[in-house]
Amino acid sequence: MKTLNLILQGFFRETMERPSLIPFECFVRKKRVQKEGKKTRFPPSMASTATFVAKSPNFPHPIPNASRPQLPASLRLALPRHLSIAVAGRRSSAAPRAAAASCSLIEPDGGRLVGVVAPEGPAREALRREAAGCPQIRLSRIDLEWVHVLSEGWASPLGGFMREAEFLQTLHFNCLRLGDGSVVNMSLPIVLAIDDAQKRAIGDRRKVALVDTRHKPVAILSDIEIYKHNKEERIARTWGTTAPGLPYVEEAITKAGNWLIGGDLEVIERIKYNDGLDQYRLSPAELREEFSRRDADAVFAFQLRNPVHNGHALLMTDTRRHLLEMGYRNPVLLLHPLGGYTKADDVPLHWRMKQHEKVLEDGVLNPETTVVAIFPSPMHYAGPTEVQWHAKSRINAGANFYIVGRDPAGMSHPIEKRDLYDADHGKKVLGMAPGLERLNILPFKVAAYDKKQQKMAFFDPSKPQDFLFISGTKMRTLAKNREDPPDGFMCPGGWKVLVDYYDSVTPQETNRSREAVPA
Amino acid sequence: MKTLNLILQGFFRETMERPSLIPFECFVRKKRVQKEGKKTRFPPSMASTATFVAKSPNFPHPIPNASRPQLPASLRLALPRHLSIAVAGRRSSAAPRAAAASCSLIEPDGGRLVGVVAPEGPAREALRREAAGCPQIRLSRIDLEWVHVLSEGWASPLGGFMREAEFLQTLHFNCLRLGDGSVVNMSLPIVLAIDDAQKRAIGDRRKVALVDTRHKPVAILSDIEIYKHNKEERIARTWGTTAPGLPYVEEAITKAGNWLIGGDLEVIERIKYNDGLDQYRLSPAELREEFSRRDADAVFAFQLRNPVHNGHALLMTDTRRHLLEMGYRNPVLLLHPLGGYTKADDVPLHWRMKQHEKVLEDGVLNPETTVVAIFPSPMHYAGPTEVQWHAKSRINAGANFYIVGRDPAGMSHPIEKRDLYDADHGKKVLGMAPGLERLNILPFKVAAYDKKQQKMAFFDPSKPQDFLFISGTKMRTLAKNREDPPDGFMCPGGWKVLVDYYDSVTPQETNRSREAVPA
Repeated sequence: MKTLNLILQGFFRETMERPSLIPFECFVRKKRVQKEGKKTRFPPSMASTATFVAKSPNFPHPIPNASRPQLPASLRLALPRHLSIAVAGRRSSAAPRAAAASCSLIEPDGGRLVGVVAPEGPAREALRREAAGCPQIRLSRIDLEWVHVLSEGWASPLGGFMREAEFLQTLHFNCLRLGDGSVVNMSLPIVLAIDDAQKRAIGDRRKVALVDTRHKPVAILSDIEIYKHNKEERIARTWGTTAPGLPYVEEAITKAGNWLIGGDLEVIERIKYNDGLDQYRLSPAELREEFSRRDADAVFAFQLRNPVHNGHALLMTDTRRHLLEMGYRNPVLLLHPLGGYTKADDVPLHWRMKQHEKVLEDGVLNPETTVVAIFPSPMHYAGPTEVQWHAKSRINAGANFYIVGRDPAGMSHPIEKRDLYDADHGKKVLGMAPGLERLNILPFKVAAYDKKQQKMAFFDPSKPQDFLFISGTKMRTLAKNREDPPDGFMCPGGWKVLVDYYDSVTPQETNRSREAVPA
Repeated sequence: MKTLNLILQGFFRETMERPSLIPFECFVRKKRVQKEGKKTRFPPSMASTATFVAKSPNFPHPIPNASRPQLPASLRLALPRHLSIAVAGRRSSAAPRAAAASCSLIEPDGGRLVGVVAPEGPAREALRREAAGCPQIRLSRIDLEWVHVLSEGWASPLGGFMREAEFLQTLHFNCLRLGDGSVVNMSLPIVLAIDDAQKRAIGDRRKVALVDTRHKPVAILSDIEIYKHNKEERIARTWGTTAPGLPYVEEAITKAGNWLIGGDLEVIERIKYNDGLDQYRLSPAELREEFSRRDADAVFAFQLRNPVHNGHALLMTDTRRHLLEMGYRNPVLLLHPLGGYTKADDVPLHWRMKQHEKVLEDGVLNPETTVVAIFPSPMHYAGPTEVQWHAKSRINAGANFYIVGRDPAGMSHPIEKRDLYDADHGKKVLGMAPGLERLNILPFKVAAYDKKQQKMAFFDPSKPQDFLFISGTKMRTLAKNREDPPDGFMCPGGWKVLVDYYDSVTPQETNRSREAVPA
């Protein structure tokens, strides 16, 4: 606790120096809520619906019930309190209908937010009946995540799975040209694969129903176009390699069909996972509403799929400070963990959310200026290509600043002993990407553990001997070995979640051998 | 000759129907020149300098003297008669200097044509002296071809080998953003590889000399930037595959160094190959001058690396007819065979030029409205990625129309039994490519052999039984077997060149076994 106190004092001191910016009163209130609100839990009605993931037998990446942590509590502090769920009604024309967007925030790509979820009532029921009469395509978990992404306008102006013209533009140019000649960024192919038998079954029908793993209709895809799925070319142009072992490729492409089907999407009802986390899955329209409610004049997004340590927290706090110095009155942080498919050795979403909760509880971030929500996209681990998607989708959610780290969306080369991408390419490519000109890119400052100060601090190249770099691998190994990281690396509550997670995945190894901690 | 007469009659008839467009007098004059001018040869001074290729021992793809055909004759008819060689002088600033460009033609990319060849005189000598004091990088034949391409502004506004920012934009977006925010197309990486030892030798020097295979200084590269050459990523993103056996990859990338060096190029003197074909290597500035001299109000470019058959000729004639119908007064054809590196089983440049000569001699194309010149770029065989380069470079040469065929720059997959690219993707990608909005894309109409008419004609899907498709493979096999194609497929003179070429490359097989002709 000594270290945490030091960090809190640091934060406190920083806050006191700019009392008008983060009012002391807010800070105290947050601390009080932490003390009093620890027992807060989601209403039982939410928990009782958390069955979808566990019951579905064909789930590609289920989270076992045994290893699912308790639902987060104090994260709720960062959630909007009076959200009116604003999803657009069923479209009557080919053009996606726009959901309401705040004028003061950055415009969505293409000028309006796609929303293709049918409103409750006769329209939804008509869509459901129509789906029953269409040829069916069964969605994998990842397909469903993309339906989710498309349905809420994260990929605006894309209003459905890509047809060939969009697919080719994405592969070759990482962007789409709109009817008015303007260009929006679109770096990842958002496509739906079908096999020969499905193609035959569709025949010359113009609409298909998309159904979940239990054959329940989820959406209709209309005005469809079926075209060849050249997997090798898709993989090479998206990842810059065709080496075996790319997680998304093995999960979603290798065994997929040889055809892609594109079209306009109409989703019957809002996509839910019933895993106790749905309320964190705010749509871009809901996020925009929340930012407006908070009177944000700048929104800075931080994409993450890993536990938050105090280096991240330092960066986010420092970013807000810089934005205030730039003259913004009320910059709000969108802390936006990725909620879709991740590779097997990443920490699962439930555990990450629990860890984020502890970090917020420990007061490292100010809930008054932080919105925590789940980004529903699956991960490609496609480095410079994917980071554009991560940034572009956050424009649609209202963010006009995007924090980019070292080697974003990167991983080790699957068969060679090196990183797949140059650590600086993500940042460079993002800064030059067509369609992202309106977004302000904030390069991640390198934070490391300052041994003298016993806390995470921005690395000072003039005294490298003072700093200790704690890699993800080192962090994981420490947690697996139930060892503590240096004081001040991560708040103790957050660290305990990590240790608990690794305990939960290796219950059989009670007396497991200790792994060597990398230097 | 019967077939050729039929074709000539067809051309004649077509011409007579629009006497004001292609004057009869021109046509007659052309025919007369053909009769009288057959003995025309290049001046001896040109032939005597044709030693560079043959003498250089390290040439990656030399044309053996034995198989080199006689220099073309009547092609000269299509050449500009009073060319003033307009290459820009040595740059005094970082910005490339513009060569004069005609106002009536399409503007070069970036608004001005790059020309980085030093003018004869003290500036050139100063550059030569400076080169002697710089670390040296020895250029391969393909490197030299790229120096040639860059030096004349085919890649305008690119003024030298790519630095990392340009390389990344090319790989990810197939285009470059200029200082004013505008975008130009740039789909192929134009890069120079160096190895570890060369990198060490350069150290922190800011300039290097580029020397030819005989260590003669060719150019200076200044304000250099050295960055990693991730070959796998470069190949995957350029070709959409990393399969072994891609010709350019094996020739120029696999064994190349692990670093790329970019910078501003200053070329000491105009690149020559001394192979008797240099006078066909017109720069973009020279082509523009020629088009202006001919008073062209439209220029349509036809890129080719294969022998011309009557289907091509039909297409080119038909294109001109369409442009006239569209209201253009004098559309001029740029018949633009690729002159750089090609794969081993392509017909070498010398033979192709001789074949083109025969085709022109036979009157299938009108020399008054045709400019034949050599495009100095090497081939990548990178399909939809490369066709953009072929089109973009022709904008710089003044073309505002580009004819795109089926599967442009395509080839068979190196290890699978299929074409590497979808035959329609080149055309589709070209039509959507950023930076090519100003260029009019003319899709290639499919021509096949009409058995009833005994000539090449546009394929009529209502009577497929009347048509015979003669593939490149079939054409090559016929020529290798010394068999004649159907009357009217190609003019007899052009066909004889092909037969002679295959004779020259298999002299040992006098009684060679006949290959089966594909159906």
